[in-house]
Amino acid sequence: MEFPPVTPPDATVAEAARARQNLLTKPVGSLGRLEDLSVWAAACQGVCPPRPFDRVRIVVFAGDHGVTRERVSAYPAEVTAQMVANMERGGAAVNALAAVVGAGVRVVDMAVATDGPSGATGAHKIRRGSGDITCEDALTEQETVAAVAAGRRIADEEVDSGADLLIPGDMGIGNTTVATTLIAALTGSEPAVAVGHGTGIDDAGWARKTAAVRDALFRSRPQRTDPMALLRCCGGADLAALAGFCAQAALRRTPVLLDGLATTAAALVAERLAPGSRAWWRAGHRSPEPAHALACAALGLEPILDLGMRLGEGTGAATAVPVLQAAVATLASMSTFAEAGVSGPADG
Amino acid sequence: MEFPPVTPPDATVAEAARARQNLLTKPVGSLGRLEDLSVWAAACQGVCPPRPFDRVRIVVFAGDHGVTRERVSAYPAEVTAQMVANMERGGAAVNALAAVVGAGVRVVDMAVATDGPSGATGAHKIRRGSGDITCEDALTEQETVAAVAAGRRIADEEVDSGADLLIPGDMGIGNTTVATTLIAALTGSEPAVAVGHGTGIDDAGWARKTAAVRDALFRSRPQRTDPMALLRCCGGADLAALAGFCAQAALRRTPVLLDGLATTAAALVAERLAPGSRAWWRAGHRSPEPAHALACAALGLEPILDLGMRLGEGTGAATAVPVLQAAVATLASMSTFAEAGVSGPADG
Repeated sequence: MEFPPVTPPDATVAEAARARQNLLTKPVGSLGRLEDLSVWAAACQGVCPPRPFDRVRIVVFAGDHGVTRERVSAYPAEVTAQMVANMERGGAAVNALAAVVGAGVRVVDMAVATDGPSGATGAHKIRRGSGDITCEDALTEQETVAAVAAGRRIADEEVDSGADLLIPGDMGIGNTTVATTLIAALTGSEPAVAVGHGTGIDDAGWARKTAAVRDALFRSRPQRTDPMALLRCCGGADLAALAGFCAQAALRRTPVLLDGLATTAAALVAERLAPGSRAWWRAGHRSPEPAHALACAALGLEPILDLGMRLGEGTGAATAVPVLQAAVATLASMSTFAEAGVSGPADG
Repeated sequence: MEFPPVTPPDATVAEAARARQNLLTKPVGSLGRLEDLSVWAAACQGVCPPRPFDRVRIVVFAGDHGVTRERVSAYPAEVTAQMVANMERGGAAVNALAAVVGAGVRVVDMAVATDGPSGATGAHKIRRGSGDITCEDALTEQETVAAVAAGRRIADEEVDSGADLLIPGDMGIGNTTVATTLIAALTGSEPAVAVGHGTGIDDAGWARKTAAVRDALFRSRPQRTDPMALLRCCGGADLAALAGFCAQAALRRTPVLLDGLATTAAALVAERLAPGSRAWWRAGHRSPEPAHALACAALGLEPILDLGMRLGEGTGAATAVPVLQAAVATLASMSTFAEAGVSGPADG
């Protein structure tokens, strides 16, 4: 699949935003990461001061994974479909947290094992469950292309509808096993270093999960330099669509707040598909999953929040939205020293 | 000064909130600190599910400090009065960040060196500048009592006007030197371990500041077990009022988000004045000042945000408000497993 070159956020605007931060009535640097985030927001929007983000959209990519038959999750696979229905009714964590920050939530069924009621949620569906990556490809080549293309189309739909900040989310029992495999493959990490406890498996479950990642990594060895082949071999339709979504957002010059393990794994693949995309992303929060830290380090991203959240769905990134809005507000509404008649630092 | 006993947040409601978190459609514990904060909010409000905080009030306590003559700050003392005026006009960082979270901002002049235009800001003023704590008491005994009482009265005014979440803020050139002294005195810390770079002093300034803290600590030695005497000896009218404010909020069963170094130093004194108050407080953010970490540890508080902010004014706590609102929203609007027809963890 062809991706045009990614152009970075506007460096001239970034410079103007940094200069303006240094004129505002507070010691230089005293707003910490808010200053960096404000500069990034301005550069992404191409204007200083930046505007508050007023159409934040969370898109949750749902899919089942054949690897659940290896008993890698504390939850039965049927939970994926049940949670998709819960999100559609507005009862999931992502709905509650999106409402707090005024974000919209959209759920797309990429590969749930059962078919829900027909409608918008299933419009981009690729298949019923992705393959068990310990012993078979997750997808065919054609399905991989279709899933990545679907993710790109969904990003286009959102941007064309006016979204100015995108949050990718995930829902899928077993997807932390798949995400961990992708990250371990792309960062050259040992399974035991990368595998965490997901939604809450016990030590025996962790051992099964680590064995599953090891087997999938072995299968993926020939594919490590080809991101599309990697998604086919040991990804899934939801992860592939997430990768397409993250890359396309960058191509459409729309900033993204990444969530936790699954979305950051997909982002790591997306950076291979469309190098430079990562300049359009920030990490919303730190997941306790070890592979998440590996992926953030590989992408050069430092999470904004560290609250021990490990749910997915886009919940961590949703919680970080107000920090970004706060950053924007400093550039947009604080007075400069000159405007306020406030003295600067004393000499020496 | 007499403080009645502090009663803790409602333990029965806390238990109900914890039990409800465990029924919501997500793995137990997967919302991390949001779960703890939701339980705390419910216990403070005495109701589960808790209500969104809808009258958040930031009160900035301003004051000058004679210790600035020891050249402990990068900024001239005149900046305190200029920044008070800037806050009244809405141009400071705290105004910008408060607006993002819908909080009100009030500035009170406790001891600014010059008198501003007469009005509400100066209604509680104790004196023009507190004494140079390296060589003289910050306040008289009478002034100390009056300042703590003023802080208590201000908390009462806010609670009586319907505030359901209070944020203490600070503004005062030199106040990190005073705050660091209070914390070092109450935690038995060496000056060199406790002193940081404040708003941005250089190494020579840091050495002067450390010497000032050492001198003030020496003067305070006989006062370490008497919090009122400590405020008199090496506090200030702004710090004393902040301490009264934090304690009175607890007595009025109103939760508090502490900000950075100055407010947490005052809170540490307040916990001595009215033991048990800390159960009504959470630390909004982590300051890079070493003394802040010492105070948080002594109070058993773990900061919510860690964004490298070091401005004061209540800005860090203001930025943390949406995390608390997110926590409340999970208890208030997520479905339970039973309501949503979602399966729980598989056996074994």
